[in-house]
Amino acid sequence: MSEEFHPPASATLHPDRLLPADPATRAIARRLLAAVRALPIISPHGHTDARWFATDEPFRDPASLLITPDHYLTRMLYSQGVALEALGVQPAGEQGPPPDPRSIWHTFAAHYHLFRGTPSRVWLDWVLTEVFGTDTPLTAANAERTYRHISEQLATPAFRPRALFDRFGIEVLATTESPLDSLAHHAAIRASGWPGRVITAYRPDPLVDPQTPGFVHNLARFAEITDTDTFTWRGYLTAHRARRADFVTAGATSTDHGHPSARTADLDPHAAEALFERVVHGARSGTLSSVEAETFRAQMLTEMARMSLDDGLVLQIHPGACRDHNTPLARRLGANIGADIPTPTQYVEALRPLLTRFGNEPTLTLIVFTLDESTYSRELAPLAGHYPALKLGPAWWFHDSPEGLMRFREQTTETAGFYNTVGFNDDTRAFLSIPARHDAARRVDCAFLARLVAEHRLPEGEAVQVACDLAYHLPKRAYRL
Amino acid sequence: MSEEFHPPASATLHPDRLLPADPATRAIARRLLAAVRALPIISPHGHTDARWFATDEPFRDPASLLITPDHYLTRMLYSQGVALEALGVQPAGEQGPPPDPRSIWHTFAAHYHLFRGTPSRVWLDWVLTEVFGTDTPLTAANAERTYRHISEQLATPAFRPRALFDRFGIEVLATTESPLDSLAHHAAIRASGWPGRVITAYRPDPLVDPQTPGFVHNLARFAEITDTDTFTWRGYLTAHRARRADFVTAGATSTDHGHPSARTADLDPHAAEALFERVVHGARSGTLSSVEAETFRAQMLTEMARMSLDDGLVLQIHPGACRDHNTPLARRLGANIGADIPTPTQYVEALRPLLTRFGNEPTLTLIVFTLDESTYSRELAPLAGHYPALKLGPAWWFHDSPEGLMRFREQTTETAGFYNTVGFNDDTRAFLSIPARHDAARRVDCAFLARLVAEHRLPEGEAVQVACDLAYHLPKRAYRL
Amino acid sequence: MSEEFHPPASATLHPDRLLPADPATRAIARRLLAAVRALPIISPHGHTDARWFATDEPFRDPASLLITPDHYLTRMLYSQGVALEALGVQPAGEQGPPPDPRSIWHTFAAHYHLFRGTPSRVWLDWVLTEVFGTDTPLTAANAERTYRHISEQLATPAFRPRALFDRFGIEVLATTESPLDSLAHHAAIRASGWPGRVITAYRPDPLVDPQTPGFVHNLARFAEITDTDTFTWRGYLTAHRARRADFVTAGATSTDHGHPSARTADLDPHAAEALFERVVHGARSGTLSSVEAETFRAQMLTEMARMSLDDGLVLQIHPGACRDHNTPLARRLGANIGADIPTPTQYVEALRPLLTRFGNEPTLTLIVFTLDESTYSRELAPLAGHYPALKLGPAWWFHDSPEGLMRFREQTTETAGFYNTVGFNDDTRAFLSIPARHDAARRVDCAFLARLVAEHRLPEGEAVQVACDLAYHLPKRAYRL
Repeated sequence: MSEEFHPPASATLHPDRLLPADPATRAIARRLLAAVRALPIISPHGHTDARWFATDEPFRDPASLLITPDHYLTRMLYSQGVALEALGVQPAGEQGPPPDPRSIWHTFAAHYHLFRGTPSRVWLDWVLTEVFGTDTPLTAANAERTYRHISEQLATPAFRPRALFDRFGIEVLATTESPLDSLAHHAAIRASGWPGRVITAYRPDPLVDPQTPGFVHNLARFAEITDTDTFTWRGYLTAHRARRADFVTAGATSTDHGHPSARTADLDPHAAEALFERVVHGARSGTLSSVEAETFRAQMLTEMARMSLDDGLVLQIHPGACRDHNTPLARRLGANIGADIPTPTQYVEALRPLLTRFGNEPTLTLIVFTLDESTYSRELAPLAGHYPALKLGPAWWFHDSPEGLMRFREQTTETAGFYNTVGFNDDTRAFLSIPARHDAARRVDCAFLARLVAEHRLPEGEAVQVACDLAYHLPKRAYRL
Repeated sequence: MSEEFHPPASATLHPDRLLPADPATRAIARRLLAAVRALPIISPHGHTDARWFATDEPFRDPASLLITPDHYLTRMLYSQGVALEALGVQPAGEQGPPPDPRSIWHTFAAHYHLFRGTPSRVWLDWVLTEVFGTDTPLTAANAERTYRHISEQLATPAFRPRALFDRFGIEVLATTESPLDSLAHHAAIRASGWPGRVITAYRPDPLVDPQTPGFVHNLARFAEITDTDTFTWRGYLTAHRARRADFVTAGATSTDHGHPSARTADLDPHAAEALFERVVHGARSGTLSSVEAETFRAQMLTEMARMSLDDGLVLQIHPGACRDHNTPLARRLGANIGADIPTPTQYVEALRPLLTRFGNEPTLTLIVFTLDESTYSRELAPLAGHYPALKLGPAWWFHDSPEGLMRFREQTTETAGFYNTVGFNDDTRAFLSIPARHDAARRVDCAFLARLVAEHRLPEGEAVQVACDLAYHLPKRAYRL
Repeated sequence: MSEEFHPPASATLHPDRLLPADPATRAIARRLLAAVRALPIISPHGHTDARWFATDEPFRDPASLLITPDHYLTRMLYSQGVALEALGVQPAGEQGPPPDPRSIWHTFAAHYHLFRGTPSRVWLDWVLTEVFGTDTPLTAANAERTYRHISEQLATPAFRPRALFDRFGIEVLATTESPLDSLAHHAAIRASGWPGRVITAYRPDPLVDPQTPGFVHNLARFAEITDTDTFTWRGYLTAHRARRADFVTAGATSTDHGHPSARTADLDPHAAEALFERVVHGARSGTLSSVEAETFRAQMLTEMARMSLDDGLVLQIHPGACRDHNTPLARRLGANIGADIPTPTQYVEALRPLLTRFGNEPTLTLIVFTLDESTYSRELAPLAGHYPALKLGPAWWFHDSPEGLMRFREQTTETAGFYNTVGFNDDTRAFLSIPARHDAARRVDCAFLARLVAEHRLPEGEAVQVACDLAYHLPKRAYRL
């Protein structure tokens, strides 16, 4: 039946999508976009699966590729009464029969209207149109036809991970791994002869956050992997240093830290050692206090910055999410099922200990993100507009959307400038959406710049240069790629 | 002299008011507006006086109808040095001669320029033009003529409450009453044979907030009305259940809760009972602590949600106002004279106990409002974009203005979508402004949607559907009307 | 070589800069701007050096005039790795050879691209073009030519402080002095016969903030200057009253208070006296607690308001900056080198004691500023839209930029109106940027008003009146000039 599928003439995206409506401003934005739309994609921070590129196996089906793992999608349907199980989210530990991907697809298609006005709609329309050439919008009526068409294409060589990587024009793609990960997939990629640059990033949260389930067990595994006594402070730090070196070998240029807050600490070595001992003991005995855990995470950011001065890894802080807010759901389905909620986050006092210690270091790069947009103009832009080590990560997670990206530029540029920002992060596990997200981010930046030009705040020639810097040069430089 | 009044040709509102200036976007917005402007008004939450519709007596005069009870107006003049008494606000308990409405009107007219750029100006221009056909803007020069013209019209049958209700195209109008209210006016409306649908809403704050003056007295009256021992926890809850049932009979489909914060609690039954006993004792003896009062209010939101699972009432939370901030003025003129000030409000931890208990219930509808716009993108949209029970109330009070309504859409849509919102609430005691407010809200939504269409983020056909949903279908569905 | 300098035809600013791109809206904005652009400049709050106008000596060189003292510029270059010393910032107490201004200029020019999209770029382009007639943008290539050209002009009479003051159309310019300042420069200006109106403002922070280094020493100097025992509460207050009277004589119409928070207190006289004694003792003995210091600052705002009721000085509160966040830098280079960072600031409870005491006084004017934009719509506009004494200062410091000024209007106007705001403050020590800043602020206000007109929310005739009020009449009236 697939040969009968004829994408209608309407299955194209409007070339001016996301550009301002005013004709003069749009004309400028089009010219800026022409300068950046074909630039290679730098994806310095994300969560795709290195296995895809190691094995290059075909993606299994449209639902497990596009829907089930995408929290943006499943949370919206859940909020409107659709059970997560009906979207393929499996109860924790359960090994039931795999859910039927066709049924998931149909359920999703019937709720596509929920995404009107959301970035998911922008990205999905791009994927459906540009990658698969199907009708958009997805509807209950075209769901079956679309499902078959995508399924058939996924079975072809052109839709395997490496082929898509090349087709998408990705120059470098970073995944994120725990120090406990073997990095075997990255080794396999390098050994394969395929020239695609897929690198890792060092995400030590399971070893740095004593409130992680299994923290003590993780320390023990860390000891095995590094052949070090990770239950002493000195050994623990040594193990991090060793493992960071392994990650550098696997291409890493950055570390990443997803803490509940942005708090940092700069204890003297004895106090830090005593805290570590207390943390280990407390985690073992179940007597760890929240304050101890928070202080340890805070201290570890400073320790990581200290190591970065030696090994050159860029340090990223992604704070401010309340993880697994929906306790009953977490109990039934496990962690990370789309119930994380941003919280008010403060940076001025939180970052001060780390910045006092290392903020003036010209060779350190510390990239800070936020889920609390009220900090853009109040705290983050002023901090980044002063400290040499500090750069602003782009609009993140709930805010990496057309409106969110625009607010980021509107609220940070006047104080931090463009050159204390680091371009775009797609930060996604939805591989196929990566070019869609970069496309959207480039369009929003061009829209912002076009307004500056139209309002005679920036000559167009300079705007072109900024657009290219934001799309390509700044992320390369900031992430040392 | 009234027959000599000839509204000038300019006494019309511009048909494109509040629509975006860009011609292409405005053309789209016009088409969207054409689809929604004549839809009936759903007013599911407000503060008009049921007596108006029960007695259908003529409104007394322009000042007592349009100025004295409208805090938006009196607070602005007060901020510029006009005494509230000069606007008809009477000292608490004082029974002096009624203020002269003509003098109030003239004072107001002389200060009409203060409202430039405010929503009051938008609403008042609508009322003066569309309801009364007078000149706008109101000025000192035309004040006398306008006053007479309005006065004369108010004396005619076409300007009685029921006639205006019909003329305004109101399909349903909710008022708000305390459980201590007799609901006699609502009974009279139903008995009158007039088909206008005026319903009540259950607002138990005087019985739920132990810091309300007269709390113990209120409990005693609650006991009388329900013939229940409201001084025991069990009896108190039973009385609420009984009174909610009475309200349902009077058409109620919702409850409403105006707490200082959004805090909720989920105590075990014994702890809740002990807290209630402590609250009653503390209120009687003047020894109630702020923490006890806050915890009791918090617990009662969860109790109300539990009752909603049985009787189907939609639960509304309107938190975050510091009531009667101006102590000297409150002492002189009483509560509720326009000196309430929004405060920073947190939702993520505050709502967690209630959401953990009932947030996954598909049959519960919990509508949350805010006066703290920084929570739109950070907390409220992410919560509503996840929990099945949670919906976002529209921009509220200080923010139900053209800019405020637009910020609400810009900052909530990308994460919560349109379908986790519930359309517009006018939330007003200013009856004549109701159609003005719905008109403005529809125009702002059409303006927002038109931009999405103009930027090729949403096809126009879908935007029409969303516009109709926001104006009519979503409030009907969310409030179960 | 200077005569060879020919500013290119392009060395003009676009007449429509900062106006909206939409043609219809821009046409309106142009008409509004035509009504205000030539109005005299009212500069009621700033930090220029009275000595300039007292001595009327030529400015020394381009770097020490335009770069070294401007934190907006030096912080941006510092954030990108340029040492502050290379920009002429001298280590604290060091008396080394003066840095070479030509070298500073070249360093700055080579980094001019960092200011793309910032207000500094807008202001500097104005200064370079309108004041000096040089090429813009500044580049490494034209740096030498530009430096010479500016240097030569600075040596001419037309570029002396008083000549520029007159050329800029400044009607009144306020500087800010400590009570410990002799006001000799202001006396010299008045004695000089030059008619330029340069007035002072009373900034008692060094005597009001017990955490100021040298606080006890300052009290002792205060005693000498006022011949009063400033170590008693009564004498301390008397000294303030006396010194305020001196400032009034030197033209002052306002006081100014730069506190870490907006907290106010209203202690009874005995408690206030006891607190003062404790503060003096604590400051002497190094045992002052943060709470004591904060409470004392809080109380002093209320004391200052009380004095304002007598002497008519307008009271300004500029809260919410974390001063000298970068401790190592402050240690090396001293205070005030561009490392101040805004912090979350609360107003509702903080201002309550002062407002309860004096907020209803019609003769008091209290102008409040913020660095926390989340308070515009949540706290400040509602407070200013109610209290007769309270007015909103304009967008401040990090936010007195095109986007920041626009957000201020968008987020305050609907609740506070235009007439509870006080026009623009340039708040700068960069004298030459004053007309640039007023020009930008007028354009942004016209842009905002033009949108209201284009969206049929305000008739154009009224918008013209508002534009003139914002640019000229409101600051004159609010600051009693």
